[in-house]
Amino acid sequence: MAGNRKTKTKQVSRAFYIGRFQPFHNGHLKVISAIAREVDELVIGIGSAQLSHTPDNPFTSGERILMISRSLEKLDLYYYVIPIADIHRNAEWVAHVRSMTPPFSIAYTNNPLVSRLFYESGYEVKHSPMYSRHEYSGTEIRRRILAGEGWEKLVPRAVVDVVEEVHGVARLKQVSMTGDIV
Amino acid sequence: MAGNRKTKTKQVSRAFYIGRFQPFHNGHLKVISAIAREVDELVIGIGSAQLSHTPDNPFTSGERILMISRSLEKLDLYYYVIPIADIHRNAEWVAHVRSMTPPFSIAYTNNPLVSRLFYESGYEVKHSPMYSRHEYSGTEIRRRILAGEGWEKLVPRAVVDVVEEVHGVARLKQVSMTGDIV
Amino acid sequence: MAGNRKTKTKQVSRAFYIGRFQPFHNGHLKVISAIAREVDELVIGIGSAQLSHTPDNPFTSGERILMISRSLEKLDLYYYVIPIADIHRNAEWVAHVRSMTPPFSIAYTNNPLVSRLFYESGYEVKHSPMYSRHEYSGTEIRRRILAGEGWEKLVPRAVVDVVEEVHGVARLKQVSMTGDIV
Amino acid sequence: MAGNRKTKTKQVSRAFYIGRFQPFHNGHLKVISAIAREVDELVIGIGSAQLSHTPDNPFTSGERILMISRSLEKLDLYYYVIPIADIHRNAEWVAHVRSMTPPFSIAYTNNPLVSRLFYESGYEVKHSPMYSRHEYSGTEIRRRILAGEGWEKLVPRAVVDVVEEVHGVARLKQVSMTGDIV
Amino acid sequence: MAGNRKTKTKQVSRAFYIGRFQPFHNGHLKVISAIAREVDELVIGIGSAQLSHTPDNPFTSGERILMISRSLEKLDLYYYVIPIADIHRNAEWVAHVRSMTPPFSIAYTNNPLVSRLFYESGYEVKHSPMYSRHEYSGTEIRRRILAGEGWEKLVPRAVVDVVEEVHGVARLKQVSMTGDIV
Amino acid sequence: MAGNRKTKTKQVSRAFYIGRFQPFHNGHLKVISAIAREVDELVIGIGSAQLSHTPDNPFTSGERILMISRSLEKLDLYYYVIPIADIHRNAEWVAHVRSMTPPFSIAYTNNPLVSRLFYESGYEVKHSPMYSRHEYSGTEIRRRILAGEGWEKLVPRAVVDVVEEVHGVARLKQVSMTGDIV
Repeated sequence: MAGNRKTKTKQVSRAFYIGRFQPFHNGHLKVISAIAREVDELVIGIGSAQLSHTPDNPFTSGERILMISRSLEKLDLYYYVIPIADIHRNAEWVAHVRSMTPPFSIAYTNNPLVSRLFYESGYEVKHSPMYSRHEYSGTEIRRRILAGEGWEKLVPRAVVDVVEEVHGVARLKQVSMTGDIV
Repeated sequence: MAGNRKTKTKQVSRAFYIGRFQPFHNGHLKVISAIAREVDELVIGIGSAQLSHTPDNPFTSGERILMISRSLEKLDLYYYVIPIADIHRNAEWVAHVRSMTPPFSIAYTNNPLVSRLFYESGYEVKHSPMYSRHEYSGTEIRRRILAGEGWEKLVPRAVVDVVEEVHGVARLKQVSMTGDIV
Repeated sequence: MAGNRKTKTKQVSRAFYIGRFQPFHNGHLKVISAIAREVDELVIGIGSAQLSHTPDNPFTSGERILMISRSLEKLDLYYYVIPIADIHRNAEWVAHVRSMTPPFSIAYTNNPLVSRLFYESGYEVKHSPMYSRHEYSGTEIRRRILAGEGWEKLVPRAVVDVVEEVHGVARLKQVSMTGDIV
Repeated sequence: MAGNRKTKTKQVSRAFYIGRFQPFHNGHLKVISAIAREVDELVIGIGSAQLSHTPDNPFTSGERILMISRSLEKLDLYYYVIPIADIHRNAEWVAHVRSMTPPFSIAYTNNPLVSRLFYESGYEVKHSPMYSRHEYSGTEIRRRILAGEGWEKLVPRAVVDVVEEVHGVARLKQVSMTGDIV
Repeated sequence: MAGNRKTKTKQVSRAFYIGRFQPFHNGHLKVISAIAREVDELVIGIGSAQLSHTPDNPFTSGERILMISRSLEKLDLYYYVIPIADIHRNAEWVAHVRSMTPPFSIAYTNNPLVSRLFYESGYEVKHSPMYSRHEYSGTEIRRRILAGEGWEKLVPRAVVDVVEEVHGVARLKQVSMTGDIV
Repeated sequence: MAGNRKTKTKQVSRAFYIGRFQPFHNGHLKVISAIAREVDELVIGIGSAQLSHTPDNPFTSGERILMISRSLEKLDLYYYVIPIADIHRNAEWVAHVRSMTPPFSIAYTNNPLVSRLFYESGYEVKHSPMYSRHEYSGTEIRRRILAGEGWEKLVPRAVVDVVEEVHGVARLKQVSMTGDIV
């Protein structure tokens, strides 16, 4: 919600973009920066919000909200960050998202399932602006953290701060040693 | 519920049969036709009712109800089609089914787990009449749809209609390109 | 699903009607008979499907399905009876119903909330045909059962049979002596 | 599970008794003492286990387990204390209880609903031995705690200790000033 | 998240404040304005986030997020707005909130239950700055909307816009005519 | 809860230990025996309590409670056995456990995730005393049962009795023939 809103409510063009953001990285930032040039406001959904402390989902949704908000501070975009827990009922998912978000008319996504669900619900769907998935990927970043390789360059500075603040490296290493609670 | 009921309520022999029906196919139809010769009424449970829009479960339970009802129209059987969502608590599953279905005394199944659960709850369990699993299988039908091979002969005509009505081929192709929402 | 379908799938006019049916009574039957003259097919939702064994909701959804199916046998209507559990998330309720039902375009209801939810989701909403609520009411029928007054005339004959089959009078009397499990 | 088991597993007579135990009081103790003379083992279910920090349900299920275990130490009874969360699906409740408890054949209860549910599931149901509800009642004890009147004589000594340990008086007073979180 | 963050992450003082905001009104705005003078950042929880379309909870959490964000635009406060669905398990509530929010150390609340739950979890709890509850109250605003009396002066201008945008007056009037779906 | 409590409530050292116990075996018994020498009381959590009738989780939590209680009868330890259902929300898991257990201050575990979760919640975490995982393992015992090899020596005598009482060998063999219900 940083940035200046450009228009009055009713004429606002508002879009939706979802990711897991484990963690939020420069690829996400590029996508959002590109979307920022096309719409007035952006609703950022944090997917699998209920997951944390797993090898693939180390951070809580609260921590991810912090990463994103800190990283977007300088962007000229009016945005909302909203945790979206999995419901495992695809046919109800768009209504679930819709109930928790300010009204939007465009969904940006490259995920075929998300695309299909919005399409079947009558939304305009646009491809997310592309970034180098080879270069920026949550999987790669988590691998580097575990391997002790440099990962800090792949994420905004604010994300490094949050990971440090919540002792994220130690957490990821520890939870990656096991599968589940029992 | 097409067909004529043959007997008064209290003497009715009523059975239960469950499947995922993704989609309903000729193998299912053969089984139900065979059961129809043995009982007065059949409760057809739609398993994993909450799932849809996935590679293995492309159709909603509503769409599956439509497929089954359309396909059984000419069968001389009094039937009920009831969606059964997964509860992931096997020890409570029979009670869950029981609460949502007209009383029945026989369960037709070839699934060892379903068989065990009904057996431990005191139900009579019978093997489903067999059909050629090699020939008829939801997995094979979904594979053919994706591959653009002929699949229409493996399902009742009504199922082809429903798949067309809900744009099922396009949906299956699209959701098969990805795993999950995020 | 008794009755003959009148038209091919795609041109079918299909409507939705929901009630708790505790129990199904002659008022419900009048409404459905009237709707039957206006549409080809009717999806009958059983509301609060998860409730049973309470003073206001004595019957399971399976028992209510039985009541309805038995009562509609002679009606010239192609129908579906589908249990709808409460989700307590109004903004997602239409999507929940939609996922479990064959596609429909009209909702018949006199309930302002149901009406609003379908309206906001873009459905055509029609008032249910009226019947004498003074005469026919689940509340009144349950009161009469408890008081030992005549109630059988207020429901279809098939409902009397089902209530008897499941020992419904004894159950209602017993569960009306208390509020909750603990 | 204090006390000595009297018989070999298979011949054990095992019963079930449920309460909310908010808090556990001398009336409960009398009932359990009486049941102890009739059966070998007793499964004690803690109802509404998920509730705590409300005016009617101040204590967590963990705290209630502690109260009960402490209070039964000197009783010659082999018992199990098991938290039972509400599922709000009466028709599935017995299966829910059954999945979490050692097998039992008798249910002791004076609650008509609980009685009905066990009866419909084929269990033997016995009336709980009576105690003076006028004298011992969770409602009265909570009222006295709030009013600053003497309540300690109505509960086992161990319960006074637990209430003190968890600062239960202050908690009850504070949560009784409001209804819900928002 | 409008406003300028004043300090580096680690030294940030961050607080939590929760309400239902049905709708967000000038009393809420006064409280938040006062808190803004005491802390660097504020996490605003939207309570009963899952509820909407009821007489007491007419607005979705998405709509409430919109109301709040619009109303706080000119405030010099770095804030987060996060929907918090009811879990009806008080003993787990603080952990639930915590998982979805950036780390905070102070809870502002006048609700005794919320106060107790944070206190038992080791948080610093402060009384919310007071406003005239007589003057500003969601209950009173909803009453005025229903009665056709002036309510617009009691809320920020942005809230009037949002209510208008989502046809909130018509919705509230309609859903107030009934209790529940069935 | 067999054994004699050694100390007054407030000075009690109480610990927590969790397993799936599918089934309870001599390795578990060794661990608990060792912990018994270090603490006054032990809370034994039954993990994945909701699972049963699967190849990896054949026994209900009720059956597992029976196995454990029977096996610990001769141990001089005051213990509590409490079913803990999976919640799939790691960040809320400790609060979930805490709400259902008597207060404890030490968690014994060799599971890195469990260790992390308790550590982040401020608990003292100790390594469980080790036993030969090569020799004692639920996986190995279930494999032997399926293969018809001797497994009885790997578990306490009481567990053999419980498995026999619930027809556990036949159940495990049957449910191992299939994956899921549908």
